[in-house]
Parts: sequence; C-alpha cells; structure tokens
Amino acid sequence: MPIANYLRQQGLEVRTATLDEPEHGLTEAVLAQTDVLTWWGHMAHGEVEDAVVDRVHQRVLAGMGLVVLHSGHFSKIFKRLMGTTCDLKWREAGEKERIWVVEPGHPIAEGLGEYFEIPQAEMYGERFDIPAPDTLVFISWFEGGEVFRSGCCYQRGRGRIFYFRPGHETYPIYYQPEVLRVIYNAVRWAAPQEIKATQFGNAPVPLEPIKKKAAD
Amino acid sequence: MPIANYLRQQGLEVRTATLDEPEHGLTEAVLAQTDVLTWWGHMAHGEVEDAVVDRVHQRVLAGMGLVVLHSGHFSKIFKRLMGTTCDLKWREAGEKERIWVVEPGHPIAEGLGEYFEIPQAEMYGERFDIPAPDTLVFISWFEGGEVFRSGCCYQRGRGRIFYFRPGHETYPIYYQPEVLRVIYNAVRWAAPQEIKATQFGNAPVPLEPIKKKAAD
Amino acid sequence: MPIANYLRQQGLEVRTATLDEPEHGLTEAVLAQTDVLTWWGHMAHGEVEDAVVDRVHQRVLAGMGLVVLHSGHFSKIFKRLMGTTCDLKWREAGEKERIWVVEPGHPIAEGLGEYFEIPQAEMYGERFDIPAPDTLVFISWFEGGEVFRSGCCYQRGRGRIFYFRPGHETYPIYYQPEVLRVIYNAVRWAAPQEIKATQFGNAPVPLEPIKKKAAD
Amino acid sequence: MPIANYLRQQGLEVRTATLDEPEHGLTEAVLAQTDVLTWWGHMAHGEVEDAVVDRVHQRVLAGMGLVVLHSGHFSKIFKRLMGTTCDLKWREAGEKERIWVVEPGHPIAEGLGEYFEIPQAEMYGERFDIPAPDTLVFISWFEGGEVFRSGCCYQRGRGRIFYFRPGHETYPIYYQPEVLRVIYNAVRWAAPQEIKATQFGNAPVPLEPIKKKAAD
Repeated sequence: MPIANYLRQQGLEVRTATLDEPEHGLTEAVLAQTDVLTWWGHMAHGEVEDAVVDRVHQRVLAGMGLVVLHSGHFSKIFKRLMGTTCDLKWREAGEKERIWVVEPGHPIAEGLGEYFEIPQAEMYGERFDIPAPDTLVFISWFEGGEVFRSGCCYQRGRGRIFYFRPGHETYPIYYQPEVLRVIYNAVRWAAPQEIKATQFGNAPVPLEPIKKKAAD
Repeated sequence: MPIANYLRQQGLEVRTATLDEPEHGLTEAVLAQTDVLTWWGHMAHGEVEDAVVDRVHQRVLAGMGLVVLHSGHFSKIFKRLMGTTCDLKWREAGEKERIWVVEPGHPIAEGLGEYFEIPQAEMYGERFDIPAPDTLVFISWFEGGEVFRSGCCYQRGRGRIFYFRPGHETYPIYYQPEVLRVIYNAVRWAAPQEIKATQFGNAPVPLEPIKKKAAD
Repeated sequence: MPIANYLRQQGLEVRTATLDEPEHGLTEAVLAQTDVLTWWGHMAHGEVEDAVVDRVHQRVLAGMGLVVLHSGHFSKIFKRLMGTTCDLKWREAGEKERIWVVEPGHPIAEGLGEYFEIPQAEMYGERFDIPAPDTLVFISWFEGGEVFRSGCCYQRGRGRIFYFRPGHETYPIYYQPEVLRVIYNAVRWAAPQEIKATQFGNAPVPLEPIKKKAAD
Repeated sequence: MPIANYLRQQGLEVRTATLDEPEHGLTEAVLAQTDVLTWWGHMAHGEVEDAVVDRVHQRVLAGMGLVVLHSGHFSKIFKRLMGTTCDLKWREAGEKERIWVVEPGHPIAEGLGEYFEIPQAEMYGERFDIPAPDTLVFISWFEGGEVFRSGCCYQRGRGRIFYFRPGHETYPIYYQPEVLRVIYNAVRWAAPQEIKATQFGNAPVPLEPIKKKAAD
C-alpha cells in the first residue's frame, strides 16, 4: 500500500476498503467520515454493487472528493459521474511515458518540474471518451506514438473529482515520488470545505413580489 | 406541435415520437435516421424504459444532437449524460422571465437581441445541479428574485447537447418567436457532421518503435 | 480600509498601495513580496502608468494572485489580462442586488448560504464583455431587471485572477460580512504555491532520439 | 499561396494582405469586408503597426473570425487577445509530428481520422502559455519527446479564434490535405453570423420598477 503509506507520512488520516469486504468497505458510516475517496480498480468493475455505486455517487455530489487512478477510468462510479463511455486505447508494451505539466499554476502540479517520466508504462491513448475536463493539468507522451489527457479535474455537484492516469498492476509506479506527490496534491485539492445539501424543489414563496398578470 | 411546425417551416425534416408508442417511438431504425433529437417530458420521466434510454445515450455519444427542453432537465437521458442530479428550485406563480444573452457571438443566439421576455413563466432557480456548461449562452432573471442558467451547451462523446429552460404545459411559450428561433438555432448547432464510432480498446501494434528495456 | 482590516483579522499580512504614491506603490520590491494583489480603481484608470501595468502583468503571469473588485473591471491590468473590452451596462439607482451561488462547492463560496443580498447597489448588467470564466461562481439578480456574472475565476500564466462585482464609492458594501468573506476566500484561493518562471524558447536537444529523414 | 488556393477551390472568396502593403493591407475598408482573417507571421511581428493591431482587435471583438497559424502564436494580435505571453518551447530538427484528434465531434475535426502526421516539423512544446482553450481539439506528439496543444478554440467578444500549430517557412506543410482541411474547417467555424456591437454603458432607465429605499 505505497499510496496509503505516503499519504499517512504527509499527515493525512487514511483508511482502506476493498472489494471483498461487505459493501466493499464503503458503508454509510465509512463514507460519512470520508473527505476524499481514492478509487482504483481493474477487471472486476462489474462486481462492484450498484447500491454502493449509488451511495458513493450521492456522497460525491454532496461534496466528497474522488481521486480516480489508472484503470479506475472504467469503474462504474467514474462512468456514472462522467456520463460517457470513458473508453480509450491501451497497450501493454513496457514503453516510456513522459507526463507534461500543461497547467503549472494548478495546486495539483505543486512541487513538480516541467515533466516527469515513467520508465515502463501501460499505454493509454486518445481518443479518451470523457467530457472535456474543467481543468486539464497533465498530458502524456508515449514512446509508441500516442498522447493522453492524464490529469483531469472535474466539479460535479459539490464534489471535486481528479482522474490521474499512471498506475499498473505490476510496474512499481506507485513508488515514484512524482506520482505519489500528485496523488497527495489531488487529495488536498479535492478535500471539501463541508459536506452539505442544497435545498432543491418547490419554492412557493417568492423572494420578491410578483405582479398579478392580466391573464390570471 | 408548434415546435415541429416551426422547424418544418425552416426547411427541416421533422418526426415526432411519444411516450405511448412502442419503444416510445425511438426504435433503432428511427434513431438511425435522426440527426438531432428534441426531448421534452414532464412528470412521466419514470415511465421511460431504461432500454430506450440506453439506446438514445449510445446514439448521442456516437454523434446525434440532443436538445432538452424545460422539464426535460429531470429526464433519465439528461441525468445520465450529465452525471449529476440536475435538480433545481421551481415555482408556479405566473411571473415574468427575462432571458439575457451572455454569449452573443454563439450560433444559438443568432437573430436575438440583448434579451427577450416571457410574460408568464414557471420559475426555475439556481442552484441548478449540472456540470458547468462548456458554453453558457443564456441567463434568466425572474420577477420573484431568482436567476437561472437557461441555455447550456455540452459536448458528450461525439454528440452535442443543448439544454433550454423555457417551456410550460399551459402557457403559450412555444409559440413565442424568440423561443422557436432558439430551438431552431440549437437544432442546427447540434446537428452532427457524421455519426461514427471511435476505435477503442487494445492497440497492440505501436505507431513508433518501442525500445527493449533492461528490466524486460 | 474595511477590507484590509478584515483580512488582517483573519491573520493575513496586508499592505496598501495608492495611485498617488511613486509607481503607485507597486515597485518591483513590493510586488516581489506580494502573493495576492487586490485591485480597486474608479475613474482614474487612465492615470495608472503603463510601466506599472506591465510589471503587475508579468508578476501575475509568474504566479501572483489578483483579486479585481467592482469598477476594477475597467482597469488597464484587467483588460490586459482578459484581452477584451470588459465593458458592461451600469446604472446608479440604489437598487437591490441578490447574489446567487451557482458553484457552491468552490472554495470562494465557502461559508456562504445559497445567496446574499446587497440592499443598495450600483447595477452592472450583461452583456459583460469578458472571456467565459474558467469557473463562474456567482450570478447577480438586480431589482431593475438585469443579471450579471459577478464572480469569475481565471487562470492566466501561473497566476489566478478573481473578479468580484460588488462595491461602490459610497454605499457601505465593503462592510458586509458576506462581501468580506468572499474577498478573503478569493485571496486564499488566488495565493500561489510559488512564483516561478517556465523555461521557454529554443530546446535544441531533444528528449528522445530523432531519426534522420531521407529528405535531410 | 497553397492555403488561399485551397480555400478558393472550396468556394470561399479569398484576399491576401502582406506586411509590406500600406497598413499591411488591413485597412478599415478591407476589414469591413472580411468575415474571417487568417494570420501567419514569423520574425517580423514587431514590425506590425499598433494601430493596425488595434483595428484588427476591435474587429475580432465585434465578430470577425481569426485563424492564427503556426508562428502567429507570437503575433501582437494573438498576444493581445490572449492576455498572456503565448510563449512555448521550440526546436528545428526535422522531426515527426503526429496530431491527435481529442474532440472528434467538433466541426474543426470534420473529415479527419483519429490522427494525421507531418513527416518533418518544427517542434513546438509545452508549457504553451495560453489561457486554457474553450475547446481543445488537437494534441501533438513529437518524435523528440514533447507534446503540444495544437488546435485551440476561443471566443473573445463576438469573435471566434482558432489557433492551429502546423506550418513552417520551408517544409511543405501547407500542401498536406489534412492541414488544408483543418484550415478550411476553422474558417467555416469562425465565420460570424453578423458583425455587430453590443450596447454598453449607462442604462439609466431600469427594465423593472425600483423601490424607493429608506436610506434614499
């Protein structure tokens, strides 16, 4: 758990939850205490229960941050929040990835240089079928010839979402300092001020007087 | 059907489909011939079959335009595409609405003045729980004291979506020339160049040679 | 100086600079120590020296935050950064303004309710000739029938800019707690992580080998 | 003039203007007849007269489209409209460029495949110091290891602006069919409906009655 360890070293309180736990460890009680949820999944997206996805969805819209890593692009929760297929091109060939910072003034880029490299990466390539991000922070260059929007910020409801491309099941990507730094920055950026609900629905009493119309 | 009549007068080919028809009139064959779908619904959103929503969703992502009117904000298809609740405040009090053009250079504002008025409108008020639009074209002022983002453009997949607030079950709003003009402009703006699919998935053959890594 | 006093009470270090000072108080040395500059001006925009505008412009692009208040919309520095006329409609009639929060999850809206009111305001109305903001946080409703995009976030270079509409030469608007809270939130939001320059220009040594082309 | 020839073949009426002409060929009369201006310049940006830049700027804000090519990124008019330095990294090494379409549903991408290649290109690399585009249509991959936001849409005032990266003084890039097609698409996208001015300034007569306040 290199990510959890790193975040703890930075002073954050971290809990983990896995697919095998009841309700995947994401009970109402757990979510109620969570400011930012980091989501990674691979292959088993279909096994995540819809009721849990509904719950996480509502919680994000109420203000919980969500940091989606790598193959989490195909998770039910990310697709639900984006409204698109979130599909992409991919290749497993151990190629080099160079991640360029295109928005260096953004808090998620804090502490990074102009780019950083991942020596061996799984390629994710455009077209990435997402809504245009509210802010595009990173673009990846791949040795095999593709590019990818690798760091994408979204506001949905009161919640902030960051998609971050790097990651793999076997390459030691989550031990790289730049990757860990981005995840830490993203967690801080996505942290809500407060989790609360807007009053929606019928508002029968106007804030200003409404004139009687001739037609009434 | 004042909208269909108006669009026909402008030279567009128009068909209508209703909830009561089999598959709500939105069969594969019908959608395959549709460039832009105009959606209005009220109260009965829950009766729209999920399979039809899935089909329309896929078709929009492949390039079909979608113009969502008034209470269509709460339709399954709009919520699916937005990823949020799409909730809002509302009030039935026959109040005046003044719709301001905030992006006068946008094709959807073509032919309009600086604002237009709806003498008696149902109020829809902020907070409107949508993703920030790619382009915000109109903002409404309401006599009772609220404001609303009334003209919102989105790109989702290859499809273009426009949400337009005005409309009502009983007020003659869809007979107003400015409202009809906006709907016509929106249909033209949302019309696709072509409906086609991107090649997603595994791309094992790189476009550029990938160097053998020491670790391999 | 109600704004400076309030920001000091929140623990910020605040200095003031005025038009009458040499270099308007905005010397290289002062700017080098400034994280966020709050700008207000009225009528005398033309008297601000171009050399000082150049200096502030460069500093914003290098990372300094800029909070532009009320009639600062017509300042040389704001027009320079926006690239547009920044023109608008206005009226002095002591009318009510109601400022609606349309992006309640944004840090600049922290601590606010769904809206707040200014009992007597100078009206600023759309069309406001600005680039569409990166994030639109507030929309104003005016008693006299207009609307206005009153809270607008921009990233330019490494710097963050927030335009906030309320303010007046005589009405006691800068004593209202909600207005002061927004300015404080904006200063925190616009504060840079670091002020630094990107390496631009010729980069003759490629990061990857470039194949000799037949045509060379 | 391969670009002018191509656009004429598509049925557009095309005129050319050069630096050496009086007022660089961009007189009031010429601009008044121009719907979309295509701008290319190199090295001699400083020789363009400020009065002509002012005139073009006003005309763009009033609705004229502007398509800025390649080294036009450093023109006075583009920097004026963007409000930033528009600086970037560059290299002359005859390397391959692959331009990926990231927004395939956009009119400027019409008729293109998923990407197209330029066999020998001058490299332009990130960080490109521009405001985040309203729509990002293309991202370039360079053989030497960089990426670049190569197709950027902006709305400024009533005018539409498209920046398109490819081009060179000696490589035959403006003879490539994909490059010509993009320029043609961009000209069509940027064409205004109408060139007209918004009424700005004092609006003393309110649209709605304003109540007398106690404080008055």
